[in-house]
Amino acid sequence: MHRFYQPDIASTLSLGDEESQHCVRVLRLSAGDTIEVVDGCGTLHTCRITLAHSKHCQVEIVDSQSLPRPWQGTITLAVAPTKNLDRIEWLAEKCTEMGIDRIVPLLCGNSERKVLKTERLRKILVAAMKQSLKATLPQLDELTPIAAFLSQAPAGQRFIAYCDPALPREQRRSLAQLYEPGTDVTILIGPEGDFTPAEVDAALAAGFVPVTLGESRLRTETAAVAAVAAFHAITSRG
Amino acid sequence: MHRFYQPDIASTLSLGDEESQHCVRVLRLSAGDTIEVVDGCGTLHTCRITLAHSKHCQVEIVDSQSLPRPWQGTITLAVAPTKNLDRIEWLAEKCTEMGIDRIVPLLCGNSERKVLKTERLRKILVAAMKQSLKATLPQLDELTPIAAFLSQAPAGQRFIAYCDPALPREQRRSLAQLYEPGTDVTILIGPEGDFTPAEVDAALAAGFVPVTLGESRLRTETAAVAAVAAFHAITSRG
Repeated sequence: MHRFYQPDIASTLSLGDEESQHCVRVLRLSAGDTIEVVDGCGTLHTCRITLAHSKHCQVEIVDSQSLPRPWQGTITLAVAPTKNLDRIEWLAEKCTEMGIDRIVPLLCGNSERKVLKTERLRKILVAAMKQSLKATLPQLDELTPIAAFLSQAPAGQRFIAYCDPALPREQRRSLAQLYEPGTDVTILIGPEGDFTPAEVDAALAAGFVPVTLGESRLRTETAAVAAVAAFHAITSRG
Repeated sequence: MHRFYQPDIASTLSLGDEESQHCVRVLRLSAGDTIEVVDGCGTLHTCRITLAHSKHCQVEIVDSQSLPRPWQGTITLAVAPTKNLDRIEWLAEKCTEMGIDRIVPLLCGNSERKVLKTERLRKILVAAMKQSLKATLPQLDELTPIAAFLSQAPAGQRFIAYCDPALPREQRRSLAQLYEPGTDVTILIGPEGDFTPAEVDAALAAGFVPVTLGESRLRTETAAVAAVAAFHAITSRG
């Protein structure tokens, strides 16, 4: 069944402009057809089209179902966006598919990207939510200076993907050693030019614990996806 | 220092056409400059340019260093390539960055992609190997019918990312529950249209154990990357 996204579907009983167009113009659905509409807050509505209007398609709700997030504890990723937009976009898509609660684009001293339009990213999150059969849309913050984020970082476990080069390899700790499955967790991933020493110090002072994501040098977006995959893999230990 | 790839560098003492061009034309390096050359088999050579020729740049070897793979046990990913080439390409890039030994593109009954040119993929593997500071190039097979692969699958643990829909959720097993860190491991990831029932039966008969990669419906390329990330995360448990 085709799935659409409309945050206020339960009160408006109407799809927005783009979703209406997709539903009526592209998919050629018509009155009487049944569709699924998620509200991005965890509810999946089964709806019947009552008016197949290409700008504000109207529906009635046949059934509503709560789809809880299939993982425990919230996962927050705070990551400096890459210079190349494609790389942030796939990071956002992949993390949403695997499951994430909040993405905070960070502005760091060494960030090559100082401006980020979140509108396009938000569309990617919506598409990935629908594609992976979820009903909850991750929260996407605007570009946030790292100091501002550190001053109000979420509660729970806090990690920073960073290795002090002076630390002997055997003293480096991995997510699998430190992450307690099911707890709220936040991980910081730095820009292509890495965190500045002052940023690392500020993160440590804010209770962020350094972790290694393995022995390979990973690109920013690969590190982000690997960390989110690791949270899910470790949690599924059962 | 700039890093190049030349499989037979130790015997030829010369870079190939493309790498020579990049070295001499693009980077404008000249005789006397020092570069790094990996052979794709685990050795990193420090070299000095003796003749900065833009088609066959010649070098002398100053130092050779063995760079062992930083993970234990071999990781083989057998995956049906996606219709969209971009998606296979990033799968190959990300798996190489995180660390993988062999990628086998599978031809399945429901494959939307029946032909795969591996030349472009091989270039991506080379770039990702260099970028992530490795000296070992993953083996990339030609497109292989799944039956042929099953008949000579590698030894070690064998998994298939597949869930019998009839199996209750609590009986589904995850990689974290089944994978023994450091053993040789192979995982099969199906095409966008999933494995056929006959393919699943053949894989089970060949000793592949069904695993779930979590509760989310993942695209083919996301499942592949999540599985490889999971192997590394679980192994790094220490």
